Amino acid sequence: MHAANGLDLKDYVRDIPDFPKPGILFRDITPLLATPVAFETCVDRLAAPYQNDGVEVIVAAEARGFIFAAPLALRLGAGFVPIRKPGKLPFDTHAFHYELEYGTDTLEMHIDGVARNQRVLIVDDLLATGGTVDACCRLLEKSGAHVVGCAFVVELLSLGGAQCIAPCPVFSLIQYP
Amino acid sequence: MHAANGLDLKDYVRDIPDFPKPGILFRDITPLLATPVAFETCVDRLAAPYQNDGVEVIVAAEARGFIFAAPLALRLGAGFVPIRKPGKLPFDTHAFHYELEYGTDTLEMHIDGVARNQRVLIVDDLLATGGTVDACCRLLEKSGAHVVGCAFVVELLSLGGAQCIAPCPVFSLIQYP
Repeated sequence: MHAANGLDLKDYVRDIPDFPKPGILFRDITPLLATPVAFETCVDRLAAPYQNDGVEVIVAAEARGFIFAAPLALRLGAGFVPIRKPGKLPFDTHAFHYELEYGTDTLEMHIDGVARNQRVLIVDDLLATGGTVDACCRLLEKSGAHVVGCAFVVELLSLGGAQCIAPCPVFSLIQYP
Repeated sequence: MHAANGLDLKDYVRDIPDFPKPGILFRDITPLLATPVAFETCVDRLAAPYQNDGVEVIVAAEARGFIFAAPLALRLGAGFVPIRKPGKLPFDTHAFHYELEYGTDTLEMHIDGVARNQRVLIVDDLLATGGTVDACCRLLEKSGAHVVGCAFVVELLSLGGAQCIAPCPVFSLIQYP
């Protein structure tokens, strides 16, 4: 999955062992963000499959998702709609509660963020178990939106996120086993 | 402060009374984000004053700051370095603790995010009292960076944020009294 410039985006991901807790290998994308040619290439490649897909809205959950979703919205000429933790969005919201390993979490989206039948692309930096993006899909269902796909910078294949959100099509730039 | 296309960005800001608490009038930028021409114009105008300023890094605090900082970094050919709440950044960090109306808050930046003497632009959606952006400035001081300015979409003039971060030059697209 290398575009014309041949850049290997994995070269800009730093492995951090034992974060956020022992035994977890964290894939740190901050070197990618700090390197203009890598960040630009990343957005180019995220946009490529959707150039002729009629995407009208890009949706992303805070906070790292915003970093890729905002430039992608501009690149595709789409609007950007943020999904946030409770209490952050000032207007009326749809809310979705979901299970975490310990406890529950909630995400919210403005009720007027996405219109019925609008073509929506969900974007995040990382696809792990898929819990967050599944919550985004459920919020979009409440709006009656049409989710054309989910795009990620990094996908951790062994955690089964793509299965979690099937049949929604998944696209990712960098895969780890 | 209207660029060539004549768009008045204020038309895309929605006033929400009594959010997040009674007596506060919240300036909601989500209509701006959802409207591609307005979001694009916003990023164009944020970039304009810095086109020939040699900005090497754009820095922003989570979460709304990311929405403007990421496209601005791409537009200016600069790197993007996120400033985050405690426990979110996986590598070694600088931390800065600061006072809020009730209690304190902390922001962190990777110690290798910005190099000594790099030319840095701080970006956020809103300049209110200036507490968050002042904290960003202090973190950048720890790195020995050169802050060339702070750019905001919305500035609430009566709250004195520009005075709080003086003499750092402030630029904003939309001002309210």
